[in-house]
This record gives sequence, structure tokens and C-alpha cells, in this order.
Amino acid sequence: MATKNPLIISDKDEMRKWSRIMRSQGKTIGLVPTMGYLHQGHLSLIKEAQKHSQSIVVSIYVNPGQFSPNEDLSTYPSDFLGDIEKLKSIPGGVDVVFSPHNLYDYGDNRNNCGDDQEERGPEKGGKKVVSCVVDGGMGHETWVRVERSEKGLCGKSRPVFFRGVATIVTKLFNIVEPDIAVFGKKDYQQWRIIRRMVRDLDFGIEVIGSDLVREPDGLALSSRNVHLSPAERDKALSISRSLGEAKAAAEKGQVKCRELRNSVIQAVEESGGVIDYVEIVDQESLETVEEIKRPVVLCIAAWFGKVRLIDNMEICP
Amino acid sequence: MATKNPLIISDKDEMRKWSRIMRSQGKTIGLVPTMGYLHQGHLSLIKEAQKHSQSIVVSIYVNPGQFSPNEDLSTYPSDFLGDIEKLKSIPGGVDVVFSPHNLYDYGDNRNNCGDDQEERGPEKGGKKVVSCVVDGGMGHETWVRVERSEKGLCGKSRPVFFRGVATIVTKLFNIVEPDIAVFGKKDYQQWRIIRRMVRDLDFGIEVIGSDLVREPDGLALSSRNVHLSPAERDKALSISRSLGEAKAAAEKGQVKCRELRNSVIQAVEESGGVIDYVEIVDQESLETVEEIKRPVVLCIAAWFGKVRLIDNMEICP
Repeated sequence: MATKNPLIISDKDEMRKWSRIMRSQGKTIGLVPTMGYLHQGHLSLIKEAQKHSQSIVVSIYVNPGQFSPNEDLSTYPSDFLGDIEKLKSIPGGVDVVFSPHNLYDYGDNRNNCGDDQEERGPEKGGKKVVSCVVDGGMGHETWVRVERSEKGLCGKSRPVFFRGVATIVTKLFNIVEPDIAVFGKKDYQQWRIIRRMVRDLDFGIEVIGSDLVREPDGLALSSRNVHLSPAERDKALSISRSLGEAKAAAEKGQVKCRELRNSVIQAVEESGGVIDYVEIVDQESLETVEEIKRPVVLCIAAWFGKVRLIDNMEICP
Repeated sequence: MATKNPLIISDKDEMRKWSRIMRSQGKTIGLVPTMGYLHQGHLSLIKEAQKHSQSIVVSIYVNPGQFSPNEDLSTYPSDFLGDIEKLKSIPGGVDVVFSPHNLYDYGDNRNNCGDDQEERGPEKGGKKVVSCVVDGGMGHETWVRVERSEKGLCGKSRPVFFRGVATIVTKLFNIVEPDIAVFGKKDYQQWRIIRRMVRDLDFGIEVIGSDLVREPDGLALSSRNVHLSPAERDKALSISRSLGEAKAAAEKGQVKCRELRNSVIQAVEESGGVIDYVEIVDQESLETVEEIKRPVVLCIAAWFGKVRLIDNMEICP
């Protein structure tokens, strides 16, 4: 099979320059933002982007701004060379891999992130909203907040997460200047938040959602799955199984969200998972729903061992 | 004198389309954001923009997002036809006046702003950060926060102001997609906040500061000056006079900020003004300075009657 070597760009001015040349040639640009350690889920996003744009940029950047100091930034898996090989194998390929070093470093050496655990201070687990980007002096201080949607679901246990996601996506949008961007509906709340942000901030960018991809046995693909032991991985199948059962029950007429939620909670807890949340929310506003009358999504986050997994299923009555 | 009729655009898609056509023709675009009721200060911003770009967009939009419900949104002066006449009279002219109707209306009729005082609720003067854009349902919910710089100076008494400014400027940047944007240094903190935001969010836009313009007697030009009675206007001259005296004293060797501040406070209070703040801050970080060792700016906000005036002078030791 013919392969295409992507151009690897790490400098943001060079990235923008490339995009502007493409645009001046009349080519549309599709962006697929990732944190690397690519799997079939990412590759499906890229295939989606290929349908909508003539040139493809995949960004690979583990964003310290969306991790709390007590989260797994330091153990987040990475395999840059393996990622490049995977990207080469995609039919049609990608044009650019944008792999910046540190998007919060503005050249003044007064901003720390990522490597500097000691300086993160005593906020660990505390109430103040603190990310792995240290804000002080001349350091980074601008954050995009999608104030209502960022609060629920994953926002409850990950208070800096969506602030960090919205901010890094804004930065990537401003650097890459794409026409479209593709996000996975595996991260359902993230996808909705980015769509809302694009509406509210008037970005001239179309945000496309791409369906969640599962292993043959039902486990939703995630870079973090690599940290599951075989036993944990087996137990974690209770997530997709119980979501599927709840969806089937809803489609047979069970409209009471309390019943549906409880069945999922019970199944996941019985298999040894620790629930972060199970919620049924409106697909667009993400507001909690008591009775299913309009399109909703059943969302879950649960821990198996040291790994926090998320999953969801859309339900249309 | 030859005049140039600007194209008047109110639709944001049409605005972006115009900009993209200009860019495809190799022309650079300069944006001058205003709230209308144009005076010589605005015209000086436009002249500055003409130096740096081949086509000029002036936006006229009174942004409800930067007003608290207890502020003067409803009495903010406007004169659209007069503004257009003034713009026609500028040598070289402007290409587009972008005059959108409501940049927080996304077509779902569930968002109120501007006209709907009753619905703004009991937060008036309260601690919660509330602007004239009501956030709820499917309404606008995304805000850009420049978290450190937005807190001091005007941010203390106007808690939603810089959130609203940063957000509307982001929206205008995304709609107009300019190469450069010009802001007046009269609104010194605003200018610094926009520069910081552009750095932190990686906008591909150069932000240019333009010097404050004064009346012959020293009063800084402001659209709000129209609300001053002749007596108030006369008393308000104490602002520029005392700033000038403090600047002269600093240049003669007075480095103690406390002394310089006190002299301004005393002069303005003696003339009947009510001080909001007088501060000497670092020109870039806006952090309070005790002793002048590096470039600083002396900033003031004070009330004369019902009018809040701001002014500032840069001091280089």
C-alpha cells in the first residue's frame, strides 16, 4: 500500500504559515486534535476529517492545562514514532503532524508546566482550580470557560479539565486555522463543549462529531486502556454491557432515568468498578433529565483499579 | 476632499466572507473595534490602523457583555449616522463598518440582553459576576478570562468588564479575521489585557496600542464626556492636571509611589471628584509598584457627578 509521509511541524508560526499557504491555494484544512498514543478511534476521526477537507492536520500534544496536579499527566502514555507509523498507514494519509513542544511557554522562562511537580504547591486535591500550568508572573493567564456545560459530568471530579480543553482547542484553532475540526463522541461532554464554544466565540470552523469506536468485546477505545490489567479489562466490560442493556430497556419503553441509572450503577459496582458518575442528560444542553422525552445520552465515568474510564450511549426515544 | 463610502455590514458570515476575499487578494486587514459615538480619539486609532494595513474594518457595537446590570448600558451614547459621516471624512477612509445587531443571539430566542432589565434578577451590585448578557438555557455561556490582569484597577469596581471585553474581542477577531487590531492606550488595562490574551490564545493578530488623545485643555477624549455638565467638565480637568504634575515630579526624581498617588488623590478630591482608584503599576504586568525603577503607568478612575472617567500617563524613570 502506498504510504504518505506527513510533514512534522513543531513551530506554531510555521504551522500557521503552512495553513495559510493551503488556504491561498483554495484547499480546505481539517484538524484532528489528539494527545497521541493513537488507536483505531483516532484513525476513525482522521477518516472522518478526510471526508470533509482536502488537507489534514493531526495535532499530537499532551496538554498540561487540562490535568490537575493530582492526575495522570506524568503517566499518560506516549509513542510518537509509533504514532507516525500508524498515520502513514492510513489510506490517503495526513499532510501534517503538528507536535509543539510547550504551548504555554512564551519565551520568558517564568512559566512552568509538566515537569515541575514540586512547584505546583499545596493545592493538591484542594478546592482552588489549579492545573499543571502554573499561573504567575508573566506566565499564561488566559482561560476559555464554557461556564455552564463545564460544571456537570466529568467537570465535577475534574475541575480544571474543560477549562484546559477549551483553552488548548482555542489555541490550536488559532494556530492551525482549520475549516473543520473532528472530535470523538467518546468524549461526549468535550464534543458538546467545543461545539458550544465555537458557537459562542464565533469561530469560522465547523466542528464534526465522530462516533465512538469499540473493541469487538465492547470496550470503548481509549489510550488509557493500556494501563488496565487483564483482570481489570475484563471487569470493565460491565460498562459497555450495562449501557447497552439500559439503552435497550429505554428503547422498549423504560423512560424513568432513575431506574436506568440504577441498573448501570449496580452492574458496574458488582463487577468491582468504582462509580464517578452515571447520568442521563439532554444531548445538547447536557442538563440532567428525569424522564426520557427527547434525545438523551447516558454517560458514565468509573474507576477500575487506577484507571478512570468513560463511556456513553445516545438514546433517542 | 474626496470621501469614501464604507460598506456597512451587519451579518457576521458576510463580514468573514469579505475578509477572506481581501486576504485571498493579498490584502492585509486592520480592525478598529469601537462602541461608536466616535470622536478624535477613535479617528486617531483608524489613522494608526491605516499605517499597518491595506484595508480597514471599524466595528461599531455596544457590547452588553461588558456592562453590569447597574452600569450605564442603557444611556451609553450613540449616533450611528453621525459616526458614518465622521468615517467618510477621514483621509483614505475605511472600507467596512461592521455593525452587528446582537452578537449574543444565536437564533434560539432564549438569550436576553440589553433591553430586558427586569429579567436580570436581584444580583444588582451583588458579588456574583453578572453582565447584561443573561446566561441560561441555550444562551451564551463561553467567556474568555485573563485571570490575573482582569482583577486589578478597573476590574475591582467593574467585575464583568474585562471578561466581557476579552470575549467580545475574541468574537470580533474570529468574525473579522484581521491581521492587526488597534486599541487605544486611554483604556490602558484593556489594551494590556488584549495583548496578553492574544499571546496566551495564540491569535495570529498583531495588537497595536495608540496614544491617548486629549482636548486642548487636557481632558482625555471619551464618549462619556458628553454626559458631563460644563461645571463637572471643568472640575474634571483636575485629573489630567494632577497626573501631569505627578509625572513631572517622578521625572524630577520622586520615586515614591505613595507620595505621587497621594498628590493625585488630593487634587482630584479637592476639585469634587470621587476617587475609584489611583494606582501606579508596572506597564506590562499591571502589578502595583511601590518605587519607580522601571516603566510604570499612573492610572486613575474617578467619578464626577454620574460620570466615571479614566485616564493614565506612562512614566519612564
